[in-house]
Amino acid sequence: MPRPKMRTKKEGFKVRFLPFDAVVSVPPYSTLLEAARTAGLPLKNSCGGKGTCGKCLVQIMKGRYETRSSASLPTRLIKEGYVLSCLTGVQDDLTVGLPQFQEVSIGTIVSSRFLEEHKNAISGTYKIDPPIEKVELDIPPPSLENNASDLRRFKRELGKKRPVRELNCEYSALQKLAHAVREKDGRTTAVLFRSGDSWTVLDVEPGAPGKKICGLACDLGTTTVVLHVVDLENGEILGTSSTLNPQLVRGEDVISRIQYARKPGPLKELHDLIIGAVNHLIDEAAQTAHVSVRDIYYASFSGNTTMAHLFLDLEPRFIREEPYVPTFNELPFFLARDLGLKTNPAARVHLAPAVGSYVGGDITAGLLFTPLYRDPEKISLFIDAGTNGELVVGNREWLMTCACSAGPAFEGSGTRCGMPAAEGAIEKIKLEGSGRAVYQVIGNTRPKGLCGSGLVDLLAELFVHGFVDRQGKFNPPKTGERFLHDDEGPAFLIEEGENTFWGKDLVITERDIANLIRTKAAIFSACLLLLKKAGLTFDEIDAFYIAGGFGQSLDIENAILVGLLPDLERNKFSYLGNTSLLGAYLICLSDENRRLVMDIAKKMTYIELNTDPSYMNEYTGALFLPHTQIDLFPSVRQALHL
Amino acid sequence: MPRPKMRTKKEGFKVRFLPFDAVVSVPPYSTLLEAARTAGLPLKNSCGGKGTCGKCLVQIMKGRYETRSSASLPTRLIKEGYVLSCLTGVQDDLTVGLPQFQEVSIGTIVSSRFLEEHKNAISGTYKIDPPIEKVELDIPPPSLENNASDLRRFKRELGKKRPVRELNCEYSALQKLAHAVREKDGRTTAVLFRSGDSWTVLDVEPGAPGKKICGLACDLGTTTVVLHVVDLENGEILGTSSTLNPQLVRGEDVISRIQYARKPGPLKELHDLIIGAVNHLIDEAAQTAHVSVRDIYYASFSGNTTMAHLFLDLEPRFIREEPYVPTFNELPFFLARDLGLKTNPAARVHLAPAVGSYVGGDITAGLLFTPLYRDPEKISLFIDAGTNGELVVGNREWLMTCACSAGPAFEGSGTRCGMPAAEGAIEKIKLEGSGRAVYQVIGNTRPKGLCGSGLVDLLAELFVHGFVDRQGKFNPPKTGERFLHDDEGPAFLIEEGENTFWGKDLVITERDIANLIRTKAAIFSACLLLLKKAGLTFDEIDAFYIAGGFGQSLDIENAILVGLLPDLERNKFSYLGNTSLLGAYLICLSDENRRLVMDIAKKMTYIELNTDPSYMNEYTGALFLPHTQIDLFPSVRQALHL
Repeated sequence: MPRPKMRTKKEGFKVRFLPFDAVVSVPPYSTLLEAARTAGLPLKNSCGGKGTCGKCLVQIMKGRYETRSSASLPTRLIKEGYVLSCLTGVQDDLTVGLPQFQEVSIGTIVSSRFLEEHKNAISGTYKIDPPIEKVELDIPPPSLENNASDLRRFKRELGKKRPVRELNCEYSALQKLAHAVREKDGRTTAVLFRSGDSWTVLDVEPGAPGKKICGLACDLGTTTVVLHVVDLENGEILGTSSTLNPQLVRGEDVISRIQYARKPGPLKELHDLIIGAVNHLIDEAAQTAHVSVRDIYYASFSGNTTMAHLFLDLEPRFIREEPYVPTFNELPFFLARDLGLKTNPAARVHLAPAVGSYVGGDITAGLLFTPLYRDPEKISLFIDAGTNGELVVGNREWLMTCACSAGPAFEGSGTRCGMPAAEGAIEKIKLEGSGRAVYQVIGNTRPKGLCGSGLVDLLAELFVHGFVDRQGKFNPPKTGERFLHDDEGPAFLIEEGENTFWGKDLVITERDIANLIRTKAAIFSACLLLLKKAGLTFDEIDAFYIAGGFGQSLDIENAILVGLLPDLERNKFSYLGNTSLLGAYLICLSDENRRLVMDIAKKMTYIELNTDPSYMNEYTGALFLPHTQIDLFPSVRQALHL
Repeated sequence: MPRPKMRTKKEGFKVRFLPFDAVVSVPPYSTLLEAARTAGLPLKNSCGGKGTCGKCLVQIMKGRYETRSSASLPTRLIKEGYVLSCLTGVQDDLTVGLPQFQEVSIGTIVSSRFLEEHKNAISGTYKIDPPIEKVELDIPPPSLENNASDLRRFKRELGKKRPVRELNCEYSALQKLAHAVREKDGRTTAVLFRSGDSWTVLDVEPGAPGKKICGLACDLGTTTVVLHVVDLENGEILGTSSTLNPQLVRGEDVISRIQYARKPGPLKELHDLIIGAVNHLIDEAAQTAHVSVRDIYYASFSGNTTMAHLFLDLEPRFIREEPYVPTFNELPFFLARDLGLKTNPAARVHLAPAVGSYVGGDITAGLLFTPLYRDPEKISLFIDAGTNGELVVGNREWLMTCACSAGPAFEGSGTRCGMPAAEGAIEKIKLEGSGRAVYQVIGNTRPKGLCGSGLVDLLAELFVHGFVDRQGKFNPPKTGERFLHDDEGPAFLIEEGENTFWGKDLVITERDIANLIRTKAAIFSACLLLLKKAGLTFDEIDAFYIAGGFGQSLDIENAILVGLLPDLERNKFSYLGNTSLLGAYLICLSDENRRLVMDIAKKMTYIELNTDPSYMNEYTGALFLPHTQIDLFPSVRQALHL
């Protein structure tokens, strides 16, 4: 190890933690664990700094360091700069990555083929018609006879190409106008924002269009945040970036974040975390897209109501207090510069409209990407199993919706072996009779954990093989040598440490299984109750659209087997992935979708489950595999001879 | 003199110059003159720092100082902290006022009596109907049955009182909404901005209206800047403040400022100077008005096209280059926070529309305050004799306008004895046969100089008594002992130093007189040419409205005598004062006036004099008292037996 630079003791060192960009100064010879705690980051450590539990693992990205060796760390990881923070002294300025919060590269199912296939089926439109457009004009030079102002001559030429009643101009664009209309013999490219027949010049450049004009679509998820940079002229997705929501350090679900944000300081902290994360994603995606962040003039966000409030630095407490009222559900546009977004400062920012405190813009946007609202007669059901579960039933004529606290288990959070559908995640898994697992990993790496679809598979396989009973308890005689008992209680060995990425056994505990069952029970019982309220049975539903962060490979058969989805004809189900992001993308693409999503939000009737006493009964009944009332799952009963 | 605080030599001291808020750090024992030069302030000094010319006079407002005595400084001024900066060493942090740029308190002719008299005569309306209004609402608390968002419940209540189609909300107001609608049992006061049936919430507070909502009206003059703080609910002017335009240090007229602003740095400097001055005036007027600057939600500015460009940090060079084209003439609204104005950050900012490079918002706004545009038949003429002279002829059906470079002589700049119509200015003056002056001073103090009306009087009196000839040259035999010869050439003694405020002789030089004659010639010849272009003679004009910074006491008879105004029936003339400010005030008062001023601007046809060869002929002819063609001034010929 090379010697660190000499410093006087008083100076101390700066440690920068990624992905949060949290920077702290610490005295020399502090441990990295101490530095993380100074920064307020929740690095776990259960062995008291002895280097045995291995939970305080971090990766040194930059800077020189010295660390003591630990038996719990495989050489492979040591070579990649991973250290146990409790055994590592700070002797230089360091940049340190926290693996559990590190950038995740989440695959999205938006591909040109997919779009092509669904173009004519979904509720939204694929017509490229964003409210921002680039117009090339030839502005005649002024003369003594035609000495109208630059803006007037601009308006005159624009009027020949577009129906302009009123023309406004961003202050920053006005400052560039005189040069723009003169530098290239009057050839001028303007970026315009349209609202009816009123137009606003957002930007202006001399010459022919030399660069793309872009928008961004971003899903502000409770657990993950995903962002596309979009070419507004052809709808092409030029760059994608994603991250775990850094607010996770202050609570895994919206309720705990609302609780945390009760005071202005912590609220501001959560706001800064999400704005910082989004800005980081903008940078990253723009870089991939080879565009400047200043070329982004439109930003379409979707997120649940709490996320929208935190994103806007609005106190969310009344969302949680009866009668559960948000500050706002919808507003036309915000200004990027007011929010501190790292796009063009004049960019217009749209948030998909919410219906209420527990059905947010992620759902209304998501509906744009289902065929649900397209049909005037057929009745469909839409389930978004995110950290919160939201359900919508109806068609073009009517829509009913409800929400439940599902928990982030299927998004890969809240279970020890779970992770988002990112590189290293097991997305499909089968168990042999011996319990040995055969699986498929995203990116074909050693497995780091399981994403939602893998967890559904695993739960189904454990159940089918009788390794767990209908209550989700292990059946020790059958599990054989895969049955363990670690510090969190009974567990099942999925893969041995020597074959995993982190070099540690990959296990699922009984507590994890209970968590998964609670999540599926919350969703299924909400589904059952919503249909009851609508006076419908499952059979009357023509189509089930499932959204959520399961990953691309959700196995419908297994989802029915564990009782997450109802036992119906398999061809009624479609798994659509991150519909919130896809909806935000559609809104970015076409202003017609923005108006449509408003209509959708207006038409939705919200059913409050929190105050319905029968919900708890339904929920308790669903805490079994697949359900207490096995009659609800005839095909499962038959297959498993229950 | 008490000893200054001990400082080490290295530290140096801070010197703050008012009214510019220019702060410089200088080494100890620098002179104040050196400090002023470091700050880039144009303090004159013609004796080379010997303390004899007395031109580098400054006033120490704060801080300890030591100065050497000078014979040129009266004891009275020494007592008030005045020193010669070349004789004063910097030995402490100092705040220093520059007398020639100090705050001027300019009387305006807006008084409730005046308004009352003119209410029904002017082109604008006095109906109080600004686009900003305060509304008190009782927002019902949310319940499980009525759990609409805060904004939705707000909109519902607002809809009962106002025709609301679309409701938008400033981001900052949205952040306050949840608490505002809850804190006082739902009683909420909102400040709203109206545009058609689309409304924007600018601010929101819990409880009944506790404070005023204000606007401001500001005339951005080339030489002086005057500002009113206005109660938007009753139109009352709550506070007034004024200052010399600090851009004066970079040029006295718009042409020299355009020249100075050719590079981005100097442009930014001029922009910062005017924004700083306006913010200073806002502070001052708000303090007088006993309101918070945050209660100012609307700002109406009027100024010539160059001033508007400098105010907005827009490069003005194309205003000056043929074909004289500004960046813009009119735009609906700017945001105070984009411009860095010290009002409420959400305040809407309006600039009165310009017609072109040389007829700006000061003229269109000014026309609101004349009866010119009211009448569909009678033809009137409007002359604004500011630093630029602008003229308008016409009625409700048609308007023709032109501009000329008058120079700031009648505003008190550009002549040695001139000053704005502020305290200490001689506003009326008569000469006795001996040449002794009898005069009236604003504020009844010792005279500091003469404002425009005083200068017109003085020129007329010098002419009537034969002290100057028709070319403006002194007639030495007649002037007797009042005739001097100082370092600027021949001069006439108006008042002796022992009776003046600055302790120095008040004189008018032949150069000053030439300057005044050039100014009146520019205006009169433009007037003559404009009428020619309109195919009219003076006799066909029903009314002459005169605006400008002459002061309140312009003597029409004398103005005709010197050939500034045409020789017509005296009752056709009205002197209206600062119509630009009055127009900005009217726009602030009522949105109808804002629409009206747009109509006015649209209807105006601009006549370019710069390119008209006959203008120079007309101008040369007018460089006499009253004019080369004495036939144009029959009453003067008769009175003076010319």
